[in-house]
Amino acid sequence: MTKKGTIILETFDSKSLRNNPLCDPSIREFPVYLPPSYYSSKKNYPVAYFLSGFSGVGQMHLNVSFLSENIHQRLDRLTASGKMKEMIVVLPDCMTRYGGSQFINSLGTGNYEDYIVKELVPYIDKNYRTIASNSKRAVCGKSSGGYGAAVLAMRNPDVFGLMCSTAGDMSFEYCYQPDFPKFITDIEHYGKGDKAIKHFIKHEINFKQPKPKYFFNILNSIAMASCYSPDPGGFKTKGYNFDLPFDVETGEPNTAIFSKWLKHDPVRMVDKYEKNLRKLKLIYLDAGVNDEFNLHIGARIFCDKLKKKKIKYVHEEFNAGHMNISYRYDRTFEMISKHC
Amino acid sequence: MTKKGTIILETFDSKSLRNNPLCDPSIREFPVYLPPSYYSSKKNYPVAYFLSGFSGVGQMHLNVSFLSENIHQRLDRLTASGKMKEMIVVLPDCMTRYGGSQFINSLGTGNYEDYIVKELVPYIDKNYRTIASNSKRAVCGKSSGGYGAAVLAMRNPDVFGLMCSTAGDMSFEYCYQPDFPKFITDIEHYGKGDKAIKHFIKHEINFKQPKPKYFFNILNSIAMASCYSPDPGGFKTKGYNFDLPFDVETGEPNTAIFSKWLKHDPVRMVDKYEKNLRKLKLIYLDAGVNDEFNLHIGARIFCDKLKKKKIKYVHEEFNAGHMNISYRYDRTFEMISKHC
Amino acid sequence: MTKKGTIILETFDSKSLRNNPLCDPSIREFPVYLPPSYYSSKKNYPVAYFLSGFSGVGQMHLNVSFLSENIHQRLDRLTASGKMKEMIVVLPDCMTRYGGSQFINSLGTGNYEDYIVKELVPYIDKNYRTIASNSKRAVCGKSSGGYGAAVLAMRNPDVFGLMCSTAGDMSFEYCYQPDFPKFITDIEHYGKGDKAIKHFIKHEINFKQPKPKYFFNILNSIAMASCYSPDPGGFKTKGYNFDLPFDVETGEPNTAIFSKWLKHDPVRMVDKYEKNLRKLKLIYLDAGVNDEFNLHIGARIFCDKLKKKKIKYVHEEFNAGHMNISYRYDRTFEMISKHC
Amino acid sequence: MTKKGTIILETFDSKSLRNNPLCDPSIREFPVYLPPSYYSSKKNYPVAYFLSGFSGVGQMHLNVSFLSENIHQRLDRLTASGKMKEMIVVLPDCMTRYGGSQFINSLGTGNYEDYIVKELVPYIDKNYRTIASNSKRAVCGKSSGGYGAAVLAMRNPDVFGLMCSTAGDMSFEYCYQPDFPKFITDIEHYGKGDKAIKHFIKHEINFKQPKPKYFFNILNSIAMASCYSPDPGGFKTKGYNFDLPFDVETGEPNTAIFSKWLKHDPVRMVDKYEKNLRKLKLIYLDAGVNDEFNLHIGARIFCDKLKKKKIKYVHEEFNAGHMNISYRYDRTFEMISKHC
Repeated sequence: MTKKGTIILETFDSKSLRNNPLCDPSIREFPVYLPPSYYSSKKNYPVAYFLSGFSGVGQMHLNVSFLSENIHQRLDRLTASGKMKEMIVVLPDCMTRYGGSQFINSLGTGNYEDYIVKELVPYIDKNYRTIASNSKRAVCGKSSGGYGAAVLAMRNPDVFGLMCSTAGDMSFEYCYQPDFPKFITDIEHYGKGDKAIKHFIKHEINFKQPKPKYFFNILNSIAMASCYSPDPGGFKTKGYNFDLPFDVETGEPNTAIFSKWLKHDPVRMVDKYEKNLRKLKLIYLDAGVNDEFNLHIGARIFCDKLKKKKIKYVHEEFNAGHMNISYRYDRTFEMISKHC
Repeated sequence: MTKKGTIILETFDSKSLRNNPLCDPSIREFPVYLPPSYYSSKKNYPVAYFLSGFSGVGQMHLNVSFLSENIHQRLDRLTASGKMKEMIVVLPDCMTRYGGSQFINSLGTGNYEDYIVKELVPYIDKNYRTIASNSKRAVCGKSSGGYGAAVLAMRNPDVFGLMCSTAGDMSFEYCYQPDFPKFITDIEHYGKGDKAIKHFIKHEINFKQPKPKYFFNILNSIAMASCYSPDPGGFKTKGYNFDLPFDVETGEPNTAIFSKWLKHDPVRMVDKYEKNLRKLKLIYLDAGVNDEFNLHIGARIFCDKLKKKKIKYVHEEFNAGHMNISYRYDRTFEMISKHC
Repeated sequence: MTKKGTIILETFDSKSLRNNPLCDPSIREFPVYLPPSYYSSKKNYPVAYFLSGFSGVGQMHLNVSFLSENIHQRLDRLTASGKMKEMIVVLPDCMTRYGGSQFINSLGTGNYEDYIVKELVPYIDKNYRTIASNSKRAVCGKSSGGYGAAVLAMRNPDVFGLMCSTAGDMSFEYCYQPDFPKFITDIEHYGKGDKAIKHFIKHEINFKQPKPKYFFNILNSIAMASCYSPDPGGFKTKGYNFDLPFDVETGEPNTAIFSKWLKHDPVRMVDKYEKNLRKLKLIYLDAGVNDEFNLHIGARIFCDKLKKKKIKYVHEEFNAGHMNISYRYDRTFEMISKHC
Repeated sequence: MTKKGTIILETFDSKSLRNNPLCDPSIREFPVYLPPSYYSSKKNYPVAYFLSGFSGVGQMHLNVSFLSENIHQRLDRLTASGKMKEMIVVLPDCMTRYGGSQFINSLGTGNYEDYIVKELVPYIDKNYRTIASNSKRAVCGKSSGGYGAAVLAMRNPDVFGLMCSTAGDMSFEYCYQPDFPKFITDIEHYGKGDKAIKHFIKHEINFKQPKPKYFFNILNSIAMASCYSPDPGGFKTKGYNFDLPFDVETGEPNTAIFSKWLKHDPVRMVDKYEKNLRKLKLIYLDAGVNDEFNLHIGARIFCDKLKKKKIKYVHEEFNAGHMNISYRYDRTFEMISKHC
């Protein structure tokens, strides 16, 4: 029988997240995967930080389901097959009340970039036998996790030397803007304008079921606004702490606010972080050619910008949409293994 | 038994459309509805120009189907019920090779605004007992027809004094831009970049069936580009006579081209045509609150701009999407009847 | 330029349909297509009777639409290309209040089989230069029209010597029974049990728009019941003149009633009409492999029964569902042309 | 802070499941929920056996997800709120290679009824402080779990005195038969007839991803056939150990086989188990009025049969379909609490 890796459920109290604006807990539990040989060797291992998509946290990747591996099973299989080097995989919890932090520092949600870069990485390096070097430290993920991977690596190449972004949020006019008119329509189930948003935030983001199908459409725009265009004083003035990139009643685009979002758009960050991008040992992007959020287009644009700057990258497309593509994680771990 | 109106099938050879860039016919057939009393009276009547949606022409409104009125049956019923004044209704053909002209003059398609304003209106006034005054002449339609109604009235208030726009194309970042990344994905069924577009235009826009479901997605962007951002010399240089508002291979937005589109966006034309809008006797907009192309949002933005300028309008929303809403024509003809 | 065929719009007052139980008109208009050479020759021509699907009548096949031929254009093209022999094509109107007669005699709807076989065929033979022989007379259609073609030919091989059935209703447990539980759910929008059905029939089958999306689900089961399990006295006792093959409130299957339906199921009629089937010059069935009503399975079962009896047939499947398959009519007319 | 219940992960080696025909493990892990007071009291508690739906096992109910409780959180909340009595909840694993056992004994899958009734119940009563009486022992579940609840209670009223069935499989012509023609279509992706089924069973039921969307359609019919119409010798003769209720190539219904299925249809078991049903303290059925598998119709028919026999039951319908209805478990535990 194949030797298996071990899952450690870590608990960590973050200084970065203390007193965050959404009163989310600073203590977070998250799984750490240790490779099969970990306890029988004295080796040090590369580390991959695996970021979850919107509405996800690391622990959910341990959920069991029929005919579909969880991350523990997947990593064991990949390691056993030789496709993947033995490595430590960290699955952080960067959840917020609104469903996600995009792994960045924001006055609307908290300092999640700091949490990962300044706290988790040192903590893991201290407590586990890692190879504590950017050339052996990867960041990866899908969807919002793919966004986080791209942005964290671009901004912290000395921390993360390898980056794998699967269907990561980018090219915001294509992946987010189509939701804005839907938001206008959907939020009216809860009232008019600011009041409706206030009501939604106060009374709808909870465990009460069933949720209407438009619930996540609304929540996603709220979460992104809290990350990209926070309005820290907003709780007092209008009942919520962010600005939306459109008029809340008519839907008219607010380009001033949207330009704040665009500063966080990976395809628009390439110029600013060009130097950093050149430092990375691995830039890997993939996406399904039918991605419902057009993230394959985002990846193309991102890669095209790298190409024009002659920065090396690997770009793949596969025959799928945005959902049910966890099988693509195989490629992520193969790519990391090849380059670390 | 109720007396019925008469349909005349007119044939008209247009000077405006002669030698149009797409080699579409200059001779067009179109139906004219004459009200029940027309032949038994000597009265003159108001006239409504009823513009078809994308891929439609006036004659299609005479198609028969089960439990659904065609325009002839509808106008007879509305007239008989007293909800509608007796009036003449003209159903033009402004079709192009690409599925529609948006009823404007374009170097990419031809001079369809001239065709209607300078040729059809005088022709109808000359050949039928109309009340030849803008206060008795309406323009109306749904979808692209609603766009045409809005634009023709804004630009020609001395011709059309009443305008009814049902789910008219407006707020282009919401109604058109979401299609752009799909275009990139879809056109690749035919090859790469310009070659794929050239192939599509040459070999796919024809009567061959079946068409794949993405056919109309592609065609719609092509048609709009031919109206809003024509490139008259393009046939020679790249095989098609328009510019697309995005890079054909990566999908990266081309804001220079898209700004050409935006000049034709009704919500952005309000400022320029403010004086004209004030001349109109009726500005009526309606849209379904679940319009798949977000045209209810467009209508809200349009009306909000009028409101801020204190220009009178009537704005209605109804509980439906974009399709199967011909029952809303009842409201159009009621509104015209009230105001003409 | 290619010579074109002519459409004659016939009006015919049927004795068979007089005093039919649904008070549908006995006078029907229907198109007759005469081939290009008809008026310049003295030839006699084969005839194809082309039956419409549920909710359709012959005239609808003349509707015009963008990039899609109507029957006139199609027949002209097929004839010009040589794929189709010159022939007369008759497009009857066998509509009922409930949306269709299935082209059979029923105490619930009227004698539509008689109408076609005993009235239309002689009328056409008398008034047009036909070759009045079963070997030159075909019956064809799609969906309910394909059902009609199969049943009329099976029962009247001396009238129709050729039969083409595209996605014809058959194997009723697969094509109709899945709708029964939906009916139970849907009809409750109008009340409970018999009262709901009575209400629906009295107040909902009309031109009022919009219709809810479940409208046609309900109507289809009503129409089929009126054809297959009529209850002529039912108007008085329960408000509608048919029996449903399930309990109207619980949905429990009523096998006694359903067995009446099954007597009309083509796959179950093969045994009874074996002799007649052997007389046919052409038995052609086709269906899309993703037919939403499982009619490709029905066609397979039908053909398998013929195979076991060593009756000749042609069976084709194509890559499509049930809708938008009018391009398959090309095959129908090719097959008829080969065999007549 | 509310006191919380405890989850025990049990491991149990079943004699009933040893040497089962699908070589599934006889050792199963499953969670047991102990109520908050369990360890601080000496009380004995009622027990509910909570059966999973198709493709599910007890452990999956512990999966975590965003804004949606798992069973642990749900039971804690319900208990804390007083809506639910403190009770022990057992979440068995009755999975098979094909995705589920329907909780019955079958020569095709194994003796899952025996496993629960003869092994698990005594084991739980022996190892936990239960009230070991049928009047305090409930069986419940959703979908296939709701089927299992109905059938286990009907057949073992001296073991389970209370039964709650949410959207349980019943009225098989409505819930299963519509899948049969789809099966025929779908299985052809793997070849023809028996060979395709053999291939599917051997090579497709595994962790390889992605699975096509029709995968579960196929698997469901296979699983049900293995439960309802097993063919123990079939592995040798045709490569799989069950009979399908239709011809594998044409799809023609095989009524002899389907009648074997119908013997397991709860709505048809009511007559046989009438005496047992009278013994039950609680018969509770609920289903969503838009259940995609028509299970609300099944529940109606089941309840109607009870009504006619004057057997007491509670029947509820709610405004939903078949998916995302775990919020209905609240009602299940409330009902059990009221009656035990």
